[in-house]
Amino acid sequence: MTTTADQLFAELQTIVGPEHARRDGDLSAFEQDWRQLAKGKALAVVLPADTAQVAAVVQACAAARRSGLAVSIVPQGGNTGLVLGGTPDDSGLQVVLSLRRMQTIRAIDRQNLSMTVDAGCILQNLQEAAAAEGLLFPLSLAAEGSCVIGGNLATNAGGTQVVRYGNTRDLCLGLEVVTADGAIWCGLSGLRKNNTGYDLKHLMIGSEGTLGIITGATMKLYPQPVATCCAWLAVDSLDHAVELLALSQKHLASGLTGFEAMERDALALVEKHMPHLRMPVALAAGQAFILLEYSDDESQERARTRLEGLLEAAFEAELLTDGAVAQSMEQAQRMWDIREHITLAQAAEGLHLKHDVSVPSSQIPAFVRKAKAELAKVLPDARVINFGHLGDGNLHFNVQAPEGADARDFVDTQQRVAERAIYDCVNAFGGSFSAEHGVGRLKRHDLAQYKDPVALSMMRSIKQALDPLNLLNPHVLLPEVAATSPEVAHD
Amino acid sequence: MTTTADQLFAELQTIVGPEHARRDGDLSAFEQDWRQLAKGKALAVVLPADTAQVAAVVQACAAARRSGLAVSIVPQGGNTGLVLGGTPDDSGLQVVLSLRRMQTIRAIDRQNLSMTVDAGCILQNLQEAAAAEGLLFPLSLAAEGSCVIGGNLATNAGGTQVVRYGNTRDLCLGLEVVTADGAIWCGLSGLRKNNTGYDLKHLMIGSEGTLGIITGATMKLYPQPVATCCAWLAVDSLDHAVELLALSQKHLASGLTGFEAMERDALALVEKHMPHLRMPVALAAGQAFILLEYSDDESQERARTRLEGLLEAAFEAELLTDGAVAQSMEQAQRMWDIREHITLAQAAEGLHLKHDVSVPSSQIPAFVRKAKAELAKVLPDARVINFGHLGDGNLHFNVQAPEGADARDFVDTQQRVAERAIYDCVNAFGGSFSAEHGVGRLKRHDLAQYKDPVALSMMRSIKQALDPLNLLNPHVLLPEVAATSPEVAHD
Repeated sequence: MTTTADQLFAELQTIVGPEHARRDGDLSAFEQDWRQLAKGKALAVVLPADTAQVAAVVQACAAARRSGLAVSIVPQGGNTGLVLGGTPDDSGLQVVLSLRRMQTIRAIDRQNLSMTVDAGCILQNLQEAAAAEGLLFPLSLAAEGSCVIGGNLATNAGGTQVVRYGNTRDLCLGLEVVTADGAIWCGLSGLRKNNTGYDLKHLMIGSEGTLGIITGATMKLYPQPVATCCAWLAVDSLDHAVELLALSQKHLASGLTGFEAMERDALALVEKHMPHLRMPVALAAGQAFILLEYSDDESQERARTRLEGLLEAAFEAELLTDGAVAQSMEQAQRMWDIREHITLAQAAEGLHLKHDVSVPSSQIPAFVRKAKAELAKVLPDARVINFGHLGDGNLHFNVQAPEGADARDFVDTQQRVAERAIYDCVNAFGGSFSAEHGVGRLKRHDLAQYKDPVALSMMRSIKQALDPLNLLNPHVLLPEVAATSPEVAHD
Repeated sequence: MTTTADQLFAELQTIVGPEHARRDGDLSAFEQDWRQLAKGKALAVVLPADTAQVAAVVQACAAARRSGLAVSIVPQGGNTGLVLGGTPDDSGLQVVLSLRRMQTIRAIDRQNLSMTVDAGCILQNLQEAAAAEGLLFPLSLAAEGSCVIGGNLATNAGGTQVVRYGNTRDLCLGLEVVTADGAIWCGLSGLRKNNTGYDLKHLMIGSEGTLGIITGATMKLYPQPVATCCAWLAVDSLDHAVELLALSQKHLASGLTGFEAMERDALALVEKHMPHLRMPVALAAGQAFILLEYSDDESQERARTRLEGLLEAAFEAELLTDGAVAQSMEQAQRMWDIREHITLAQAAEGLHLKHDVSVPSSQIPAFVRKAKAELAKVLPDARVINFGHLGDGNLHFNVQAPEGADARDFVDTQQRVAERAIYDCVNAFGGSFSAEHGVGRLKRHDLAQYKDPVALSMMRSIKQALDPLNLLNPHVLLPEVAATSPEVAHD
């Protein structure tokens, strides 16, 4: 007999306690993404206290689905995603499984440079816990005050330190995961080497909650750098920016911990909307600007000397048109503030289209020229606001409506046009249409369009193998996976 | 109608050319592992010239298997593996698919710090190609003169630079793979960030040829260190060795590029069998010895100063009982020679049991004490020869027959006894029974015994999903995967 939604809800309340399984009142913090792109309606929002409760919730939902109820589960962390990967649709048949109550730092092993944590731990809390031990947890991104590590792992988050420490997957040693049939895989591990079979950890990371629910993780820690030094540099082309990147990698090696690029138009928006943020170098000085961060393991003095040595070489090679070195931590922070205000300045300027693309860094100048040219053909007056993590080949190639145009109308009508022009270029340059944000519900159609069909077919086979009921986040990532059983009306 | 072996062989000859598909003459270079643990008999040894030929070979074998011939494929690289993952069984029904003819370096992108290569490229050739561009390809291991990158990837090889650069998987940006149905997945990529779906690259890496055949790869390159400096250090316990590791990580950060540990008994064997190799420090000076390598991105002078600074701190902390710093590259090479001769010294001493285990580095002293105690209970006079990549928590915890005993008899009769004692300890300390060598045919039973059952079940599901015919390396890695079709007599 088919379980009803009411019966399932009652069961979920029994598992997590009545106050932690909700379906009434204002649930928009769970049902709507933070950018307010879409608001869904959940069958229930459940907040398990621990891994065993997560497993029990999954088991209950799987049983209900097997009985014929077209329920599915949307795992959710801090709900800070950008691609609608963590919020429910409006069917009223999705259970939002929030990890927010699971916030325990289970263990820190200083000697092994690792920490084991609950998936619901807020990223900033992990950074602080590491710092309290004199260690560094290097993952850092704009949402760090509210995003959680489980979400960072499920989406393989990037951020500003990738050029040195890699993406979230590179920082992970082991996982604890609840599988689609409600079993618990104890893959927590402090090991740096373990060649005993398929790397399920890496398969789960970046799978956006479609293959399992990450409930815990063992993450790498690093020695804290002794000193950090920043510079703000003007170049007259992206060609020079990319040459500067190579020179920086050669001179600073693993000391290069940040290499952000911003085209002039992006900074002009910041200057317009946040005039209190003073540019370290006048915008007239260059076409693009680099925020370069160097970290030294010896001393502040050496950090400064090394960074100045690089700048000397860069001036000699005629790569720079101007530059400023931060004279204090405070000045460095102000440089980062400008970088991080571009998004807000874009918002202040009006609705716009976001793109999160990557190409090999060697291809960046040619790609940007080509993408701008192609975009101009179809949207002649649209304004490209281009900035990003150049050190990783990752650009936020955003598009703002033409000056004076109706931004809402522009966004509503031109999104596909802009995407097609940009992503076709990305594809031609061997790039990715989603470098760090993931696919979610927003970019499923792009996956269908641009992903290698052999890869897509393997992904489908894996999804089918590990989640045959299509219970876990079925509307996310993979385009149109058919459920085997039961037939799900709203798919 | 069932394809016969003769028919398939003729077809393979057509695909790769008659001289590159062989079944007669001396094929022991392909049919036997280099340690001569086992010699099989192949249906054929085929050496495709390119990826298209690999795909055609797989298609032919898959069709034959579908027709009822119980053929399967064993992908082979340099045939330097240690766990029988790349040689055929004696059924005469396995096709050895050797990548040896595919040795092209397809492209080097200096700006992007990457190179794209055929899977059959010999590791040392890749190191040299990178060096010719002034760059570093850091993967380094004893077999580098004959192992090939496809095999390194299929087994996720480790080696001596893991403490700084990670395992082979950490050095890979993209793969080209022929799937089990003979499709070509073009996943070559120079991207540092790409969040568009499941990470098939990491799934293939370390899968030992059971999910696909790696035919090409894009690998990371690094700036070359400016200077490298080595020290040979004596400590009076592994506790101090592990404390020294933490101190080194703190002082030298990413400059720490090697941290090898050797217990005294291991070096005593080298001294006995290779008396011409002079120990940098007398064996009486400690219970264990550390070969520490530091790499600097500035100068030889600074490398020396930094290393000496660490040693001063270590002596002050009373971690060291003696030590020597290499005064030249030649002296440094001699230190590495001693480290690398332990395996040969063990061979000279006689047949022995090899174990390749890892535990979190913080657990190493307790693990070694416990494992020695447990081993002594069951094999009181067996001699532990313990050394390895301490910086990665990876020990080669080898066991030599008792002094004067019949080594062949000891190895033949005590292997399981030793393994059980050691691996039970490994397991109790959250470790791995195969840190860098993989599973192959040799350690399948250990996988059945020690792998988390939920993980094992997911692995089986994935194998079934990506290779439903069980065509690719069916006797390797996974314990007893049942073929769906056709029934295969020799499974």
